[in-house]
Amino acid sequence: MTIKVDFRSDTVTKPGPGMLDAMFGAKVGDDVLGEDPTVHQLENKLAAMFNMEAGLFCPSGTMTNQVAIKCHTLPMDEVICDQRSHVYRYEAGGIAYHSMASVRLLDGERGILTPELIEPEINGEDIHYPNSTLVVLENTVNRGGGACYHLSQIEHIHTLCNIKNLKLHLDGARIFNALIATGDHAKDYGKYFDSISVCLSKGLGAPVGSVLLGSNELINKAVKVRKAFGGGMRQAGFLAAAGIYALDSNIDRLAVDHQHALALADALHQVSYVSSILPVVTNIVVFEVAKGFKASTIVHDLLAKGIACSSTGPNTIRMVTHLDISSEMIEMAIQNIIHLYPSANK
Amino acid sequence: MTIKVDFRSDTVTKPGPGMLDAMFGAKVGDDVLGEDPTVHQLENKLAAMFNMEAGLFCPSGTMTNQVAIKCHTLPMDEVICDQRSHVYRYEAGGIAYHSMASVRLLDGERGILTPELIEPEINGEDIHYPNSTLVVLENTVNRGGGACYHLSQIEHIHTLCNIKNLKLHLDGARIFNALIATGDHAKDYGKYFDSISVCLSKGLGAPVGSVLLGSNELINKAVKVRKAFGGGMRQAGFLAAAGIYALDSNIDRLAVDHQHALALADALHQVSYVSSILPVVTNIVVFEVAKGFKASTIVHDLLAKGIACSSTGPNTIRMVTHLDISSEMIEMAIQNIIHLYPSANK
Amino acid sequence: MTIKVDFRSDTVTKPGPGMLDAMFGAKVGDDVLGEDPTVHQLENKLAAMFNMEAGLFCPSGTMTNQVAIKCHTLPMDEVICDQRSHVYRYEAGGIAYHSMASVRLLDGERGILTPELIEPEINGEDIHYPNSTLVVLENTVNRGGGACYHLSQIEHIHTLCNIKNLKLHLDGARIFNALIATGDHAKDYGKYFDSISVCLSKGLGAPVGSVLLGSNELINKAVKVRKAFGGGMRQAGFLAAAGIYALDSNIDRLAVDHQHALALADALHQVSYVSSILPVVTNIVVFEVAKGFKASTIVHDLLAKGIACSSTGPNTIRMVTHLDISSEMIEMAIQNIIHLYPSANK
Amino acid sequence: MTIKVDFRSDTVTKPGPGMLDAMFGAKVGDDVLGEDPTVHQLENKLAAMFNMEAGLFCPSGTMTNQVAIKCHTLPMDEVICDQRSHVYRYEAGGIAYHSMASVRLLDGERGILTPELIEPEINGEDIHYPNSTLVVLENTVNRGGGACYHLSQIEHIHTLCNIKNLKLHLDGARIFNALIATGDHAKDYGKYFDSISVCLSKGLGAPVGSVLLGSNELINKAVKVRKAFGGGMRQAGFLAAAGIYALDSNIDRLAVDHQHALALADALHQVSYVSSILPVVTNIVVFEVAKGFKASTIVHDLLAKGIACSSTGPNTIRMVTHLDISSEMIEMAIQNIIHLYPSANK
Repeated sequence: MTIKVDFRSDTVTKPGPGMLDAMFGAKVGDDVLGEDPTVHQLENKLAAMFNMEAGLFCPSGTMTNQVAIKCHTLPMDEVICDQRSHVYRYEAGGIAYHSMASVRLLDGERGILTPELIEPEINGEDIHYPNSTLVVLENTVNRGGGACYHLSQIEHIHTLCNIKNLKLHLDGARIFNALIATGDHAKDYGKYFDSISVCLSKGLGAPVGSVLLGSNELINKAVKVRKAFGGGMRQAGFLAAAGIYALDSNIDRLAVDHQHALALADALHQVSYVSSILPVVTNIVVFEVAKGFKASTIVHDLLAKGIACSSTGPNTIRMVTHLDISSEMIEMAIQNIIHLYPSANK
Repeated sequence: MTIKVDFRSDTVTKPGPGMLDAMFGAKVGDDVLGEDPTVHQLENKLAAMFNMEAGLFCPSGTMTNQVAIKCHTLPMDEVICDQRSHVYRYEAGGIAYHSMASVRLLDGERGILTPELIEPEINGEDIHYPNSTLVVLENTVNRGGGACYHLSQIEHIHTLCNIKNLKLHLDGARIFNALIATGDHAKDYGKYFDSISVCLSKGLGAPVGSVLLGSNELINKAVKVRKAFGGGMRQAGFLAAAGIYALDSNIDRLAVDHQHALALADALHQVSYVSSILPVVTNIVVFEVAKGFKASTIVHDLLAKGIACSSTGPNTIRMVTHLDISSEMIEMAIQNIIHLYPSANK
Repeated sequence: MTIKVDFRSDTVTKPGPGMLDAMFGAKVGDDVLGEDPTVHQLENKLAAMFNMEAGLFCPSGTMTNQVAIKCHTLPMDEVICDQRSHVYRYEAGGIAYHSMASVRLLDGERGILTPELIEPEINGEDIHYPNSTLVVLENTVNRGGGACYHLSQIEHIHTLCNIKNLKLHLDGARIFNALIATGDHAKDYGKYFDSISVCLSKGLGAPVGSVLLGSNELINKAVKVRKAFGGGMRQAGFLAAAGIYALDSNIDRLAVDHQHALALADALHQVSYVSSILPVVTNIVVFEVAKGFKASTIVHDLLAKGIACSSTGPNTIRMVTHLDISSEMIEMAIQNIIHLYPSANK
Repeated sequence: MTIKVDFRSDTVTKPGPGMLDAMFGAKVGDDVLGEDPTVHQLENKLAAMFNMEAGLFCPSGTMTNQVAIKCHTLPMDEVICDQRSHVYRYEAGGIAYHSMASVRLLDGERGILTPELIEPEINGEDIHYPNSTLVVLENTVNRGGGACYHLSQIEHIHTLCNIKNLKLHLDGARIFNALIATGDHAKDYGKYFDSISVCLSKGLGAPVGSVLLGSNELINKAVKVRKAFGGGMRQAGFLAAAGIYALDSNIDRLAVDHQHALALADALHQVSYVSSILPVVTNIVVFEVAKGFKASTIVHDLLAKGIACSSTGPNTIRMVTHLDISSEMIEMAIQNIIHLYPSANK
């Protein structure tokens, strides 16, 4: 079956002509020796955007997250995060594997944590307990249907972390979606986080890579951990150039993806095979299928129409909008959603 | 302050004259070389009781649990257990540290798991997920107020594990309390578990040690892991002899501890500084303090009367009965509980 | 100081127009979802060349090596390798960090191991010892001055490994240099190794990446480990296309690099500030500086002439020839080497 | 076959009446709660002897060593030690497993390190290298035939470690043998080491246990690591009492063991099936068997006479003297050694 509209993830985008031009005109060098000018330019650009000291380009967001967690923790420490977190659920058990750290899993509303949820779960001094040392937020929350934090919420969590001597890491796989949705500014993020992972290959549309941001001290540690992980790449400037282009060209247009997601949600509200939809605030639509329907069947039947999406549970389906989905494609998808089962319209 | 009645844990018991005689007369050898006859006798005795092939004596229940988890898992695997589990909460983050394994934390009623809770949390094949390979049960559940499994419940979990190719480990820190409370037989346990950790130094009253039970293959692996952990002891027969004595002398009397716990609960029901008490089924009493009271204050005030117990949260207190608590002590404790705050009687 | 001739490593090469065209025109997809056709083409091409079942593209040779070691070992195992090995010395302690495996370090002639060296170092069954499970060879041996194995030597080591139930991994960072130097065929390698790491960004001149080769079973395991390491890249086909181009265009020309290295050695033999030179067989020249000279000073003084090389110890210097070094550059370097210290000519 | 004289190890000793009296009269408490007075007494006594701040009782020397290494290092660090070291060879790969640390293995004369051997092996700052952070000495060196350090040698190593910011740990499994042999004083050791592991169950004759000594800060960390390892024991005072008795009664008499070892060596010099003997300085005799003989055969033939010893390689045999070997037993052993193969006397 040919996929005509690919809602499976915003990772599937392919560079267009502008980005390709940027990539293949890039000046490169051996980045393991610290000599790739384009990689440096990307790292510095993003650090400046988020008002942090330094950046480190890595081949994936899993690596930037796991390198950060490794830098912030020791074996026998404990990481506090929502139970939906990508770092906990979708990184192959990396917190335990790479950092030998335990996890304390909270249940925030759509994955959004609060100081009230975090504080009672900080372990006291006792040889029986792992040491609580790190809080990880995700913004937007993938498994929370693209829910996002406002800066004031982050500020409160930061205050608690400060008092309790906890580090604070942001998995910013879709941080620009959050910024566009809230109107918050990247520049204000630097003072609240000890590290931020920014992904270039999701909504921004670059082919490969994420950047870890932090203090000079942190990034110095992270360079070595990246080396150990095998994330040191040679002439990586070709990939970094795509990231620079994406930052220059593809941030503001995320608003379009959000409108597309809202339009999809509107259509889903009209069909009786959908029982509920998480409120859409960014580019992710998560809905529950009605009794009598199975997520896998609906995914299969939409795919037969050329529309690809993913079941994220026996009864839940996720659709993600992105750069490679045009308004025409959304219109076509909506028609198919509405008419998928003729008898199923409300 | 002198402690007159020590409800903090059943680990505080000290050997009496009979156990000391058994220890003092033990035949010993170098157990690292496999030459301590008393250690072998203990290991074989317990294996036979639980109808398993072999046993391994270790200095603690933390070691038997963590060695078992290490033997059953690989790095990047996932262990399924209740979020109250001792293996998760009170073993210093050992699952992540020793086994580099992730955890999936369930919320059973008082820590009692069911196949219905477990099944949806088993990860499917996907490179993003850790591999689900092990389920750990705890019987009785310490943090669940001494709740216990009936054998039929275990049988159902075992069936699921079999189908799903998961190993099943029992943290039997207080397994004899469960057997006494349910009337189930140790012999029937062997067929349901891949490994069982039996503690000798809680209700049974031995000074040191736990025994890991399993197949010959498992125990062969475990001997090496125990060596790596530094748990290989030389003339350990002195400690093993206390364990043998405890198995012969101190199992049936656990019923008395359970009656004592019920009597404590009765008294706690009469005072207004207690708002609720988990139903008592074994030797653990967990209660919540009423609004306007703090657990730490009550613990402090009881200690002033010579009665030691532990606060297990800002509003919860735990009392554990054991071998070194006589009926007279229980009576004394009850009087103090009832009259602690004269105005607080219902 | 501008570098005119860069002998520091063969990793510094930059793609030329042909390779850039191949990259620019590549068809790509989301490789984390297994949908990048160019990545698949590269993996299959290399697997076929080495007569192995499957391949896996990774961002670096450190990752292919460490993923392979992780797949072949368990914590508490022991890896047998030469003490000069890249996997032991230059991968940030990765064997211990990623695989929790111990090392048994041999001292082969220029890093070339033999069955006679390996056999006595295989641990027997004993709880005190880590389990010997893996032998790692490096071909060519970087720190051995580019020494290389002949296939018959590998065959004998393979036979021993078979008998002793050890896996055999090849760090083939410069395997094509070895093939060109010996006249052995890639196709014959598949039957001797359980895994081979082939680097694309050294002598072959691709910007980024290595490919791990092995059985389908191994590569299936490796995909997950790569994910955990953060080595799963999205539209990685741009990089893979460079690898395909390199395999098609840049293997035979390695002979030129070897001739260049020999020419450098000839020049070094003529100067009295060099006391000895490891026999040159591939593209690496390692020499010892004479008494009264310091490696760091010579490196500094050559750099002042635009010639970059690396000191690999207080008295040793390494020069590596590669794709971006022309015969003219070699001639210029030779003149500078000979006339570096006018009084130092023999 | 009944063993009449057991030279396999000094770990096989059994408590005599005096030690048993001390053990079973001990005052005990729950040491996991920090309430065992006898354990505290032992820890404090040893710390005072070695002029260190604090001590921690553990079930084995493997645990005290591995806990110390864990406390001194981070994952990706490197431990410098002799290639014969017990911590490297006989602790089941624990350095890599517990600490995820790499090893740099030196080849000291009989395992005795010097600053000259250590200094060139300290890694500089480079992302490719693990961080050198710890040097481990062993005194006496088991696999070095009981060779021992003089305090002045240790002082020089300490000076280097200080300059290079390396921690220094002593595996003092047989430290009292070294002190007796050299006339050095335990009190002088405290200032040179960051941690010392003292074993009670070798020459000292206690049944179980070792004590880790260090600063208060180190021991506070170590208590938690011991808990994670499962080394927290409840009423451990019974074992600690044996240690106290041993320190009071069994140190000076080690001189007798040393004389016994010398007498054995004298006898071995007289037989032609022995080709060489490492100079005897403490209680360990290591000899090489002559051509035409096999270590395993000699061990077997001696065992047939009731004399147990161990082959430590295809051509080497080790004999260890200890508390449970009387002068009569030595005499009997000597007769059997001399007359083992009538034709083999020189």
